Amino acid sequence: MGMYCFGIDVGGTTVKCGLFKIDGTLVEKWEITTHSENSGERILPDVAQAILDKCQTTGIPLNQVSGVGVGVPGPVKADGTLDCAVNLHWGYKNIVKELEDILHVPVKAANDANVAALGEMWKGGGTGANNMIMVTLGTGVGGGIIVDGKIVAGSHGAGGEIGHAHVEDNMVEPCNCGNRGCLEQFASATGIARMAREELNASQEPSLLRQGNVSAKTVFDAYKEKDDLATRVVERFGNYLGTALACFSVVVDPDVIVLGGGVSRAGDVLIDCVGKYYREDAFQGCKDTQLVLARLGNDAGIYGAAKLIVS
Amino acid sequence: MGMYCFGIDVGGTTVKCGLFKIDGTLVEKWEITTHSENSGERILPDVAQAILDKCQTTGIPLNQVSGVGVGVPGPVKADGTLDCAVNLHWGYKNIVKELEDILHVPVKAANDANVAALGEMWKGGGTGANNMIMVTLGTGVGGGIIVDGKIVAGSHGAGGEIGHAHVEDNMVEPCNCGNRGCLEQFASATGIARMAREELNASQEPSLLRQGNVSAKTVFDAYKEKDDLATRVVERFGNYLGTALACFSVVVDPDVIVLGGGVSRAGDVLIDCVGKYYREDAFQGCKDTQLVLARLGNDAGIYGAAKLIVS
Repeated sequence: MGMYCFGIDVGGTTVKCGLFKIDGTLVEKWEITTHSENSGERILPDVAQAILDKCQTTGIPLNQVSGVGVGVPGPVKADGTLDCAVNLHWGYKNIVKELEDILHVPVKAANDANVAALGEMWKGGGTGANNMIMVTLGTGVGGGIIVDGKIVAGSHGAGGEIGHAHVEDNMVEPCNCGNRGCLEQFASATGIARMAREELNASQEPSLLRQGNVSAKTVFDAYKEKDDLATRVVERFGNYLGTALACFSVVVDPDVIVLGGGVSRAGDVLIDCVGKYYREDAFQGCKDTQLVLARLGNDAGIYGAAKLIVS
Repeated sequence: MGMYCFGIDVGGTTVKCGLFKIDGTLVEKWEITTHSENSGERILPDVAQAILDKCQTTGIPLNQVSGVGVGVPGPVKADGTLDCAVNLHWGYKNIVKELEDILHVPVKAANDANVAALGEMWKGGGTGANNMIMVTLGTGVGGGIIVDGKIVAGSHGAGGEIGHAHVEDNMVEPCNCGNRGCLEQFASATGIARMAREELNASQEPSLLRQGNVSAKTVFDAYKEKDDLATRVVERFGNYLGTALACFSVVVDPDVIVLGGGVSRAGDVLIDCVGKYYREDAFQGCKDTQLVLARLGNDAGIYGAAKLIVS
């Protein structure tokens, strides 16, 4: 087994790349542009070239590379194929085969949110855990489930798609997925801002949020200032998310629940608020399960992708 | 590896025992009484004696026994210990060690609902699946989650305790677990009967259910006769259960969802009703996941316990 591995996190605009030692030490990280034109046909060849270039400049021969792990924004199945990745303009793609044919080292691929969860378990907020739920609160709500140290990819690559759990019967607007009342519509940055705008429009109640733009960040900032309107929005968010996490925890009963994504920059108040509702609804055996903040930020994907290789 | 194994399903009143060939053929099944007096100290020695007796009467030497799998009504952890099993009057118990010390063959133990799920995957409604959710609709609501062919025991032995997912904010009565609004309060036989009694008390509306005792069975019988009141109760049940299953399916994305327990004797109408609400709320990738009836009835536990040994 080689001393090194690569962790690759393919996003819609950039590909994050990491060269790691197999003990998880990050040697070097960098980014390349995602060329999604022409059905994204250049994306994987560009990744392969970036790896070959890095091997050359660092003087690491390919036979010292244990493998390449890749996280992709789409429903990657356990065999490393997917049928569609909208953000990359991909239809069916055999990620593993395409990269192995160029690189001749072992390749593994998985969904990017699942890979980020694996990264947080390896070197981040979930270090030491073996069973974990990670929820990523960004523009949308992503998730990753780890059972017995391994990603739960699911039968259709939909394992950990917890942003699309149904949490509200009375939602009129559709979610991006086509359903109505998904967790993502209330627990994402977008959802928090929408709930705040709804509150602002519903009355003339004074609020710090009337002073500038309304975003998840300004809502949490106002919450920290004990703004009444912002407090109602954050409590509503916390109730949806805490209750949903309590439901997920009776499914897999994790060691730890990790909260990441842009919204998690709100910090400990996020943990306190979501944790309060989580414990209200969690099954006895799971009530003490810790909620913690993610620690790797945007690097979670490259760490987790590398971990695909060394696990 | 021996040709035979035992599958043992320990219940509060009887212990179901099965002698199997390791290919899953049931050779013989029988029951012994569960002696739960004196903190249930006789239960495991009785099980061991039953196995030794069966080996003697069948002429199967212990060295032809690959092992003994045991399902227990309590939160069994991955190492085969549990801290408490109320129905057996057990406190802490190391099931594996206690039986191995007597029998000198490998022993594995797991939660009874999880073991039943494993049985249904091996030889029942989920045959051929590798990822499965099973829900057991009886006096309570139990569950078992299988990921990649293995039981998800969870960090506190609470994996698959899906009866205690929170599904209703407006429930006043407490669940047996102490929380309010658990799935079990609406999707169990007890919950269905309670919802029917509430409907009957709320008006003078004529209903077949006014003619005799009200139970999950009579509710489903009246539903099949297109009784309006029973239809409302069954639809409500189906909505709670279907929505909850859709939430669980974004966590583990199973190949198949198996419905068992006494309520599942209602048959195909159960699948149709629950499936309708499931598909309404399920994430796109999971909408076509099949819901099927359990097939092994009360034998699921002994099959699954045996499978612990041969997996």
